[in-house]
Amino acid sequence: MELWYSENQTDNVKFSMRVKETLFSKKSPFQQIDVIDTYDFGRVLVIDGWTMITEKDEFIYHEMITHVPMTVNPNIKNVLVIGAGDGGTVRELTRFPSIEHIDMVELDEEVVNAAFEHLPFTSSKLKDEKVSLYFEDGIKFVEGLENKYDLIIVDSTDPIGPGEGLFTVEFYKNCYKALTENGILVNQGESPYYDMNRREMKRSNKKLKEIFPICEVYQYVIPTYPSGYWFFGFASKKLHPVKDYNEEYYKSLNLKDRYYNSEVHKAAFALPNYVKELLEE
Amino acid sequence: MELWYSENQTDNVKFSMRVKETLFSKKSPFQQIDVIDTYDFGRVLVIDGWTMITEKDEFIYHEMITHVPMTVNPNIKNVLVIGAGDGGTVRELTRFPSIEHIDMVELDEEVVNAAFEHLPFTSSKLKDEKVSLYFEDGIKFVEGLENKYDLIIVDSTDPIGPGEGLFTVEFYKNCYKALTENGILVNQGESPYYDMNRREMKRSNKKLKEIFPICEVYQYVIPTYPSGYWFFGFASKKLHPVKDYNEEYYKSLNLKDRYYNSEVHKAAFALPNYVKELLEE
Repeated sequence: MELWYSENQTDNVKFSMRVKETLFSKKSPFQQIDVIDTYDFGRVLVIDGWTMITEKDEFIYHEMITHVPMTVNPNIKNVLVIGAGDGGTVRELTRFPSIEHIDMVELDEEVVNAAFEHLPFTSSKLKDEKVSLYFEDGIKFVEGLENKYDLIIVDSTDPIGPGEGLFTVEFYKNCYKALTENGILVNQGESPYYDMNRREMKRSNKKLKEIFPICEVYQYVIPTYPSGYWFFGFASKKLHPVKDYNEEYYKSLNLKDRYYNSEVHKAAFALPNYVKELLEE
Repeated sequence: MELWYSENQTDNVKFSMRVKETLFSKKSPFQQIDVIDTYDFGRVLVIDGWTMITEKDEFIYHEMITHVPMTVNPNIKNVLVIGAGDGGTVRELTRFPSIEHIDMVELDEEVVNAAFEHLPFTSSKLKDEKVSLYFEDGIKFVEGLENKYDLIIVDSTDPIGPGEGLFTVEFYKNCYKALTENGILVNQGESPYYDMNRREMKRSNKKLKEIFPICEVYQYVIPTYPSGYWFFGFASKKLHPVKDYNEEYYKSLNLKDRYYNSEVHKAAFALPNYVKELLEE
């Protein structure tokens, strides 16, 4: 018998991985959480039928969501991470010595439990002494905060289900207030290829532009997400992700990265015409 | 009833598109050729069960395979194209006024016939007066030629089946001789993600490096190929794809491109660490 997991990437597109075994399957109060072991991608976290991370290529996502902001401002001390229950974003952040504290707010404790048990490669730093874990709604967590974080990372699912409120103007306004004067917000910025993702990419970028003076998107290639072509949003009060990029600082850290390097940082902001047109429409 | 076309991207990975109808299906002396109409990708050319081009994203492939070499040398007059029976590469080349003549050598006339009938969006320039079509083996076609072409584009399938001979040292040597002193060879350079493609990407690059003094690879994202993350090889006698890039020349052409622009050209050569490591192994 062959076991396959198929993700319905659109109504008319399926991506399927051959499965060795199911390691974890649980319906939490918020969502269906599964961890499977696959032949080509190693362990895979699936939430509500959508691939969240795979052991094979999570390094791409997690290096890009963290290294780009962290190298634009070498003085980032306090970070808020919303979502990211698998722990990969926190793992990457703890590699930067400037960081004093990370607050991580994940709605669903069961995701973190599954990660502790089955995804040691991403969850390894969630118990680091610099990290405080909160199992709460990130939307409420940022309400009323002022001048507190140098960096906020919104490591969310798509804007359907529990992730929806993380794509609203009100939420982005609260993030703006919660940021320090050199503050940067990085968010999961969707994809320009399939219609549903295109729409959300455009909407999210438009809303951020209403609030932040500097607002760019940057690309990375992660083959296990629909189309493989995905973006993060970079919204900032003062610092520009390319003009203020601190290459010397990055080199001084001597990190052994698998995807990110200084050329990749700059190239990530070079957008194909069809992506530029989508954002300018 | 729902019709689906599934590509077995590896033994353990399938990519599936929902199909409206099959427009063409024929076994030629060389291979099985199908053209299908799909919901999300428009018309799709499939050879021996592998996706060759889709109406939705062929522009990415065809702009990148042509615009990168054409803008590095504004004096390209004579071009040889091997493979590319759908016609997309020739369509893009004819947009550059420097070109005087294109020889296109496609092994399988049936692919071109299918393209004329069902893929008008790529085959539109195959009858251009600057184009000579040869239905021959490209490997034999280049044997014994000297100082004839300013650019050779090897627009091949993977190195299995009829495409295999287009990935040999002997073939690359013949291409070198067939090129003029500023000659450039661009080839389908595979992908660094799945094992089979990784192996071929490395092998092809290694062989080209034995022959050409300048040898780089450049990336593009085409979601309908396995992993979505693909490369072309750029092998050249004298001109460097980034140092000799002629941005002013490109701008003067005023082409309305959908993917390519000057920033994309340069960024295409900025490789993630895992790709660099693969090529340096």
